[in-house]
Amino acid sequence: MQVTIKDLAEALDARAWGDLSMQIDSAAEPAQAGPRQIALAMSPKYAEALRPGAAAILSEGMAPEDYGLAAAIFAPRPRLVMAGLTRRFDPGPDIAPGIHPSAVIDSSAQIGDGAAIGAFVVIGPDVRIGANARIASHVSIGQGSRIGADAMILNGARIQHDVQIGDRVIIQPGAVIGSDGFSFVTEQESGVEEIRRTLGKREHIVAQSWERIHSLGRVEIGDDVEIGANAGIDRGTIRATRIGNGTKLDNMVHIGHNVVVGDDCLICGQVGIAGSSVIGNRVVLAGQCGVSDNITVGDDVIAGGASKLFSRVAAGRVVLGNPAIDMATRMEMDRATRRLPRMAATLSKLQKTVTELLDKA
Amino acid sequence: MQVTIKDLAEALDARAWGDLSMQIDSAAEPAQAGPRQIALAMSPKYAEALRPGAAAILSEGMAPEDYGLAAAIFAPRPRLVMAGLTRRFDPGPDIAPGIHPSAVIDSSAQIGDGAAIGAFVVIGPDVRIGANARIASHVSIGQGSRIGADAMILNGARIQHDVQIGDRVIIQPGAVIGSDGFSFVTEQESGVEEIRRTLGKREHIVAQSWERIHSLGRVEIGDDVEIGANAGIDRGTIRATRIGNGTKLDNMVHIGHNVVVGDDCLICGQVGIAGSSVIGNRVVLAGQCGVSDNITVGDDVIAGGASKLFSRVAAGRVVLGNPAIDMATRMEMDRATRRLPRMAATLSKLQKTVTELLDKA
Amino acid sequence: MQVTIKDLAEALDARAWGDLSMQIDSAAEPAQAGPRQIALAMSPKYAEALRPGAAAILSEGMAPEDYGLAAAIFAPRPRLVMAGLTRRFDPGPDIAPGIHPSAVIDSSAQIGDGAAIGAFVVIGPDVRIGANARIASHVSIGQGSRIGADAMILNGARIQHDVQIGDRVIIQPGAVIGSDGFSFVTEQESGVEEIRRTLGKREHIVAQSWERIHSLGRVEIGDDVEIGANAGIDRGTIRATRIGNGTKLDNMVHIGHNVVVGDDCLICGQVGIAGSSVIGNRVVLAGQCGVSDNITVGDDVIAGGASKLFSRVAAGRVVLGNPAIDMATRMEMDRATRRLPRMAATLSKLQKTVTELLDKA
Repeated sequence: MQVTIKDLAEALDARAWGDLSMQIDSAAEPAQAGPRQIALAMSPKYAEALRPGAAAILSEGMAPEDYGLAAAIFAPRPRLVMAGLTRRFDPGPDIAPGIHPSAVIDSSAQIGDGAAIGAFVVIGPDVRIGANARIASHVSIGQGSRIGADAMILNGARIQHDVQIGDRVIIQPGAVIGSDGFSFVTEQESGVEEIRRTLGKREHIVAQSWERIHSLGRVEIGDDVEIGANAGIDRGTIRATRIGNGTKLDNMVHIGHNVVVGDDCLICGQVGIAGSSVIGNRVVLAGQCGVSDNITVGDDVIAGGASKLFSRVAAGRVVLGNPAIDMATRMEMDRATRRLPRMAATLSKLQKTVTELLDKA
Repeated sequence: MQVTIKDLAEALDARAWGDLSMQIDSAAEPAQAGPRQIALAMSPKYAEALRPGAAAILSEGMAPEDYGLAAAIFAPRPRLVMAGLTRRFDPGPDIAPGIHPSAVIDSSAQIGDGAAIGAFVVIGPDVRIGANARIASHVSIGQGSRIGADAMILNGARIQHDVQIGDRVIIQPGAVIGSDGFSFVTEQESGVEEIRRTLGKREHIVAQSWERIHSLGRVEIGDDVEIGANAGIDRGTIRATRIGNGTKLDNMVHIGHNVVVGDDCLICGQVGIAGSSVIGNRVVLAGQCGVSDNITVGDDVIAGGASKLFSRVAAGRVVLGNPAIDMATRMEMDRATRRLPRMAATLSKLQKTVTELLDKA
Repeated sequence: MQVTIKDLAEALDARAWGDLSMQIDSAAEPAQAGPRQIALAMSPKYAEALRPGAAAILSEGMAPEDYGLAAAIFAPRPRLVMAGLTRRFDPGPDIAPGIHPSAVIDSSAQIGDGAAIGAFVVIGPDVRIGANARIASHVSIGQGSRIGADAMILNGARIQHDVQIGDRVIIQPGAVIGSDGFSFVTEQESGVEEIRRTLGKREHIVAQSWERIHSLGRVEIGDDVEIGANAGIDRGTIRATRIGNGTKLDNMVHIGHNVVVGDDCLICGQVGIAGSSVIGNRVVLAGQCGVSDNITVGDDVIAGGASKLFSRVAAGRVVLGNPAIDMATRMEMDRATRRLPRMAATLSKLQKTVTELLDKA
């Protein structure tokens, strides 16, 4: 995995400087970079730790001579260069090629050319595994599921039955795809139904139990999706739960039954989306956001950290807080609330003043 | 799994109309329903997509003739009919009958009649598995644990030692039952103890480490409980952590050590209940709620989404927000807070007016 | 595992009373304690259920004669005694000694003396397992990882490649260490970058996809760390994600890429720490706290339940709420907000009074 500065710059579509023949085998932070490592020094703060004679990635406008570098590559958009660079040096997961003899694979399953299957993997009837897919140890894939080409299913992930997964999908360890939805009903009106009807009042508390609504729907996951460690996606009741192409889900994200998430969304750590909600394209939900059941979040919505979305959010809106409202309004409200104790004192004093004025009048 | 409209209506305890001999093998949404599928059209909105000649489930008051249906079943309470219908058509998990030869089962374990045990399952000493229980692949069941009759333990669930699980319990993939509690103590008073004593003030910051309090208690789970994917229930310290009959826990729910949850509760996605708290019967905690340690939540309490319960909640209360308070009060407070910046401006103006009045007086 | 009252008191560094030769084999709550169990009765409330002739642990100041006890041990700091006592009576995990024949262990892996390895464990190339470490069933340990001496890795935990774990570390079932970071970049400025620049305004919505930044860094975990069930720690991008010595992480805690957590922290259930943030030593984050990316939380900070930390928190601070601010200020604000609807009415009335005064003037 060795590469010259010249070839690396070409792969990154970036400009190179200095000794283009230098051999590089990995990347490091400036303070840790060894002789065959390229130092990541896209901000002057980090660049201070560069050692003379090193190779480094710099931002446009920085001067390699200032640091005594032997070679440099210029990153017009540093994080984008990081994407290319880390892809170039990623050795990939440690899944050996071929099918491990301990794997239990149903005779009706179809395994694509070049697919790698690890130890203690279980593959059920009528499963189809795409070409060059890599299935790490301890994964289970249920009856009738399909894994796309070049997909990577990491250790101990659970793919239940009738789950459709696209090409180049990455599923981190411990994720569960296709668990049953959380859907229950009581024989008579439940307390939750009552308070939705009365807007919070309870008049008839009845002791009753929950009947299960079974989940007969599938899960459909597009191409180029990533699903985080210990995340979970429930199957739909009758229709499918769906995740669009290019959408990324972080660790411990919870997607309820019947939910539809559009394309190219970013759903960050520990977000929960309750049953039957619909999320548009390119939506960003920061860490620990929550989305109520049966609501719609429009295209290009961005929700700040820990926002709780209780009702419809129109396309293009930026929201924050619990309940989530327009971000600028929320920040103004938070500032006002911080001044509230002082405001209460002001009001109290003013009230006294007016009373005195009235007494005089 | 084919059934006539007549038999299906009888199974659902519902009224049928039209060609009672029509054969049905599954359910679908109106737009997707094929010739042998019953379309779910309980609201007029969905019914628009019904095709003539189809069979459908309608709400009471809807007219099958309006849609040119061949047969119909009437649902007086649509979600209740969904429960019956989806149970009727659920093919069940894909766990083959019998014991997979790869399973590692201790010779002292007792396996009930008709139990199915999947690939790579590990069953420890003195475990008892009830009749007709189904244990999916990769599950581990620790020493001395008991699984009830007709239970379904899905793929990769972890049942640690001395866990008692009732009949007909369903455990979704990746759930962990019986992990150790999170219980630590410092040699001298800790910062947390100090601020509980001083209500927030820190005077003596001491550098010290945490001693572990081991978890010797069990976990006891009643009958008809469901536990979601990647959820977790810690064992108790000395006494048991307990989940009552008929209670349902959603994905990624976290139940701390010593917690007692009553019967017929609904604990939604990503809820966390901290150590030693006691939850009554028929409590509903919506998604992402949090319950502090050592508090009591009374019977029939309902907490709205993302509510944070920091202190005792009396039976029958409906609460919302962080901190959780009476739902109507919280909604009034939220409305008032939204008007707060305007209110601050009004107050400021009024103050100026009064100052001018005072100057004149 | 039988012990006399005398030996138990010595092990707990506590004072004993009465029949020091009594044999004890476990601990229980007063109401459940059998003849060979020591009853935990450190508060008078619990002590009421003590039966005469029993052995009990009492708080200093309680009189064993009042309860007719045969023997007693005095706990000057009850929870500290609980630590010693539960450690004394913990039988340990049910992992049989030796290496289970079903385990798949790469020939280049080094297994320390006395290490126990359970069924269906997978150990990759160049892994080193410390002496007396115990690896439960279904665990996977990726290439190049190191597990310290006396560590306990419980069932189904996922240790990915190049993870360094110290001595005496405990990892609960289902935890994932070394999953890939959640790090993506768009070709042009993304909506998130735009609103950070404009403080909330969106002018140019562009449809674009996410490029993946691969995670080449490691995870480094110190000695005496505990990691909860279904928790997750992402690997770093270039540098390592690090957890300091003595730090305890509860169930479903999410640690993003590049995060550094100091020594002796307590990170409670369902806390999330976003990428590249730095947490000091002895920090306590109560359940469901969230920490934004790229911020610093100083030594000895305590954050109350469900606090959301959006910006730097100085050492020694006690914070609460969303957004997290000084705990005393937050509580004052919450009280003021609760009075806000009444305050709005007061202001409205005052405004009317002043208008009338003005009319008269």
